[in-house]
Amino acid sequence: MSFESRIVKTPLAERIFAAIEDAPIYDYHCHLSPKEMREDLPFRDIAELWLKGDHYKWRLMRQSGVPEEEITGDAPLEVKWQRFAESVATAVGNPVRDWAMLELEHYFGITTPLNGETAAEIRARANALIGEKALSPLKLIEAERVRYVATTDDPADSLEDHRILRAKGLPFEVAPTFRADRIFTMQAADYPEYLSRLGEAAGVEITDYFSLIKAIDARMAFFRQNGCRFADIGTEDFPTWIGNLELSDRVTISAVKGEPVEREERLGWMGRLYVDWLKLAAKHKLTVQLHLSVFRNASKRSFDAIGPDAGFDTVATGFNVGMLKYILSTAEAEEGLPEIILYTLNPADYTALITLAGSFRNVTVGMAWWFNDHIGGMREYLQKMSELSNLSRIYGMLTDSRSFFSYARHRYFRMILAAYLAELPEPEALLIEVARAIAYRNLQTKLGGSL
Amino acid sequence: MSFESRIVKTPLAERIFAAIEDAPIYDYHCHLSPKEMREDLPFRDIAELWLKGDHYKWRLMRQSGVPEEEITGDAPLEVKWQRFAESVATAVGNPVRDWAMLELEHYFGITTPLNGETAAEIRARANALIGEKALSPLKLIEAERVRYVATTDDPADSLEDHRILRAKGLPFEVAPTFRADRIFTMQAADYPEYLSRLGEAAGVEITDYFSLIKAIDARMAFFRQNGCRFADIGTEDFPTWIGNLELSDRVTISAVKGEPVEREERLGWMGRLYVDWLKLAAKHKLTVQLHLSVFRNASKRSFDAIGPDAGFDTVATGFNVGMLKYILSTAEAEEGLPEIILYTLNPADYTALITLAGSFRNVTVGMAWWFNDHIGGMREYLQKMSELSNLSRIYGMLTDSRSFFSYARHRYFRMILAAYLAELPEPEALLIEVARAIAYRNLQTKLGGSL
Amino acid sequence: MSFESRIVKTPLAERIFAAIEDAPIYDYHCHLSPKEMREDLPFRDIAELWLKGDHYKWRLMRQSGVPEEEITGDAPLEVKWQRFAESVATAVGNPVRDWAMLELEHYFGITTPLNGETAAEIRARANALIGEKALSPLKLIEAERVRYVATTDDPADSLEDHRILRAKGLPFEVAPTFRADRIFTMQAADYPEYLSRLGEAAGVEITDYFSLIKAIDARMAFFRQNGCRFADIGTEDFPTWIGNLELSDRVTISAVKGEPVEREERLGWMGRLYVDWLKLAAKHKLTVQLHLSVFRNASKRSFDAIGPDAGFDTVATGFNVGMLKYILSTAEAEEGLPEIILYTLNPADYTALITLAGSFRNVTVGMAWWFNDHIGGMREYLQKMSELSNLSRIYGMLTDSRSFFSYARHRYFRMILAAYLAELPEPEALLIEVARAIAYRNLQTKLGGSL
Repeated sequence: MSFESRIVKTPLAERIFAAIEDAPIYDYHCHLSPKEMREDLPFRDIAELWLKGDHYKWRLMRQSGVPEEEITGDAPLEVKWQRFAESVATAVGNPVRDWAMLELEHYFGITTPLNGETAAEIRARANALIGEKALSPLKLIEAERVRYVATTDDPADSLEDHRILRAKGLPFEVAPTFRADRIFTMQAADYPEYLSRLGEAAGVEITDYFSLIKAIDARMAFFRQNGCRFADIGTEDFPTWIGNLELSDRVTISAVKGEPVEREERLGWMGRLYVDWLKLAAKHKLTVQLHLSVFRNASKRSFDAIGPDAGFDTVATGFNVGMLKYILSTAEAEEGLPEIILYTLNPADYTALITLAGSFRNVTVGMAWWFNDHIGGMREYLQKMSELSNLSRIYGMLTDSRSFFSYARHRYFRMILAAYLAELPEPEALLIEVARAIAYRNLQTKLGGSL
Repeated sequence: MSFESRIVKTPLAERIFAAIEDAPIYDYHCHLSPKEMREDLPFRDIAELWLKGDHYKWRLMRQSGVPEEEITGDAPLEVKWQRFAESVATAVGNPVRDWAMLELEHYFGITTPLNGETAAEIRARANALIGEKALSPLKLIEAERVRYVATTDDPADSLEDHRILRAKGLPFEVAPTFRADRIFTMQAADYPEYLSRLGEAAGVEITDYFSLIKAIDARMAFFRQNGCRFADIGTEDFPTWIGNLELSDRVTISAVKGEPVEREERLGWMGRLYVDWLKLAAKHKLTVQLHLSVFRNASKRSFDAIGPDAGFDTVATGFNVGMLKYILSTAEAEEGLPEIILYTLNPADYTALITLAGSFRNVTVGMAWWFNDHIGGMREYLQKMSELSNLSRIYGMLTDSRSFFSYARHRYFRMILAAYLAELPEPEALLIEVARAIAYRNLQTKLGGSL
Repeated sequence: MSFESRIVKTPLAERIFAAIEDAPIYDYHCHLSPKEMREDLPFRDIAELWLKGDHYKWRLMRQSGVPEEEITGDAPLEVKWQRFAESVATAVGNPVRDWAMLELEHYFGITTPLNGETAAEIRARANALIGEKALSPLKLIEAERVRYVATTDDPADSLEDHRILRAKGLPFEVAPTFRADRIFTMQAADYPEYLSRLGEAAGVEITDYFSLIKAIDARMAFFRQNGCRFADIGTEDFPTWIGNLELSDRVTISAVKGEPVEREERLGWMGRLYVDWLKLAAKHKLTVQLHLSVFRNASKRSFDAIGPDAGFDTVATGFNVGMLKYILSTAEAEEGLPEIILYTLNPADYTALITLAGSFRNVTVGMAWWFNDHIGGMREYLQKMSELSNLSRIYGMLTDSRSFFSYARHRYFRMILAAYLAELPEPEALLIEVARAIAYRNLQTKLGGSL
């Protein structure tokens, strides 16, 4: 059974998939490392590639009862690989299992089921092929017909890696994204140092709210000059009100000095900063991607032992849509909104967020993401967008991934998209047109036809 | 492909649909204008009928990238029609597209797909038929076998249009609904004037909470005498507590004088008013329809430019089911509840609301509505009601519409109902009995067998 | 049409069901009475068995318009039976209807549809068979291949019934569960007396927080000695913060004296108690079952008239996942967590709860339960667990029931499980392995292979 036949099950779905399967990929949000792309070191070991940093896989291993020692601990890599294979072997319906099968088939032509008995053999075969083909980051990206990669970059970053990458004359564009989390995270212990670094990069001494805004403005201009088209944010908490400029100034001055700020005041400052940040993004024509309803590092013990981005994040409840409405409405009334894509980690909020987006110009809701990046989650997103918006206008898949192998997930998405569309009672030609728009054309148009 | 075959796909579903397709319609909640019914002016132009006031269509056009100028602005009507046709052409799975197709086929026999190329031709054909058949509001209502129309009326309304309509001896009943929103909206700038108008209509000078209740009582009696069977409400915010009579009195006295009232005190007054209003509805044997989880006018800029009911409303999150429980429990304990139908705009709350309703006598949850009035939304409602209640006892479809063409949506609902029931593993005779109960019999029984 | 064919519809589903249909049952959470098991009185009348205490049935009768007199009131049993039959007759898709059909077919071989016309005849046939087979609690349990029953017991209970049951040498194990609700319900009027009873049972005079913890510790040890493997809790409200030991001590001292405690302080005390209670469960190796999002006794009038557990409970909204995260993280950091199964009554929270569980070791989310114990609800749970966790590791069905007939619901669950798995694109052997793991093997392993 080919992986494709697991999802694409009718002749109509097959024809729709055929129309988009080899289309170019525009990855407008990922966490690929510009440094790793610049270095482009050849890969060696699938076990290392898959298991050294992928918290999706680590989580599934934990949920399968594997001891931490054999996940992030000191156990030998072959033991970890063995445990991973045993974990996916029975995890029916889990996307980590789907991805593993898909990547093995797509990149290595391996259709043997991965489990405890086949683990060693599959690793050997995959590694042989990695060596044979001399697979590397850039080679993988090019082979997948990727035309655009938006990485995730700190506003204080020099974008040096990006400049070197551009100088290489690659057959695809790699552009930075203005990821503003650290600017908003006043509660971080190193916030004063961060502000000072940000100010230095901007050529602005940050002493109050006004100079903070000036620095952001300068860095956005710099990012724009370096090809940036997207701004991105995902804060751990969310404003509960919008403070005025006086409060924002007072709070910033305290933060610069490293003085403690009350939570309530910080949240009001944050509300004001969200508004002004959106207005700046509009000024610099950056499309904003807003990530909502994430709780990070749920387990203090595990965070202390293993650190961040290790599979201990979770989906939040109780997102205050009314507050987001107020922020959008305020920025719009004061100056106008940028184009905005809202992402929620909690699918229970889709109806509210999609209708909220529909109350503004150029605001939309983006793909099912992270914990929701699976067949059921993507279908739910596609269905909700078709019911509550114009499905043919969505931007479609983004990887949001740290792995160069994740471009196979565009393939996964295109299968699910084809299967979903094929169920609608519409003419085939229209369905294929919509499939193409979602798979690549909407982004192609947005980013400029030349790409 | 007929529109029907898009939804009704099996022989069993066809037979169930056939059993209800031509059944009478009881529309127990809509926003049709009694004045327009009284005047009964002939229709002229489908573009005008569809686009002059339908915020569902405006929203889809915005979501499709049409500039506001060509939606609610000064662009010529043919341009707006063209843009609308282009918007629905690709909006696969969107109910506005479904409704357009269904109305074209059902009222005009047009099965040509509506899109940018066919727009002008379809408009011409539809308009020719409108002229030929001399279509008008009353003619459309009668042709759809409508037997009962409950409009939406302000408690201060004289119901003059209703009296004139009744005098016409129409083959269907048009009855007013006691829509109490303005009584509860103390934060409105014109609230004191409204109270004075309400008092005048009631023959009661409203000076305190007691006289406010007396005025509501009098107006309910008046509405009941004029055929009213339903009371209706949808407030922008919802009580957070139930104030006592002393607070309610003090707050009402301030409001009459136009003095400012603290939000917290207003919400406590509102809690008390909800309780007393329910008790009055019970006294006058009005069935109450409660509309929950709506945020109005999300975009301040668009509200200022275009006004209310223009497609800028959205679904709220975080509804406090515990508070509604407390209101229902209090009214019930003090005096007894009227029959109540709860509607939520947020389907994430269905499980909580349906089980809450099931904890009281004669409280139920009503149809998927507004943003949820589509195939997926109605199916979800039907499924939840069957899992958590006795599906055969629901009242079924209401249009909630401002458009005389919306009776086609009863047809839409009946298709979805037939398709849903046909999937249940039950004998055909039982399914047809349940379909008939939901499509019209439960309402027929409720409103009295003579209708 | 056999009941099985309503759910198990494909040959593959049939084969999966066949592999688990006769497997042993491990019921790790129910409300069966140890006293009734000990007495083992023969059954007499299906009407009495079904209608004397089953609030699921009472609720459906209310939702079907039956007057209270004929549900919990003084009407003769044959009238109640008649009304129940009329209620289920049209409640298509409702689980109470499904269960009634399934139990009639499974225990009595009756496939005649239950409705107003067949009610009397079906009752007579069932009662004849009850007499013929001399059905009794223990006979029913044994016939269903039940190997383990965890009842629900108060920590102050002497477990006398359990000791007598054990002495009988039954072919299955009946074990107590440490149900801690009353320990946490300080707002109850008889709380001081309860503490004194608990202290007596523990041989500890409860005077402050420290002695309260000591008493819980002692009782857990006692329960463990008597075969207890599970602790269980479902409090009406949930902590909003975690108080420190000083607060907890002060609050306990007040409570012991029957002095009033502020709600806010009580909730902080409760937060601390949740943490310490989890740590004690870990110490005694009890698996904790946490029941979330229940509002009890929504209708004050009905509670006053009829009492608790009478069908007036409802699903809560707005559960604070962040607070649960904080409690788990705190207990884990202080000492370590026991194995925990989280149950929510609100399926809108599944995504958040399953990802939260996945952030800790040995925390999982348990079966759809109570209002969600139906085809759609169980499927939703199974799908979410497969998407967000490793489905093959869940513990599967528990009855949570007061009725000895409820073991048929394991059959119901196994049908739904088979139907769900059969839709996954996986090899049959793997699906059967997963089905067996969920149906009984995971519990068998957990409880020790000897059972």
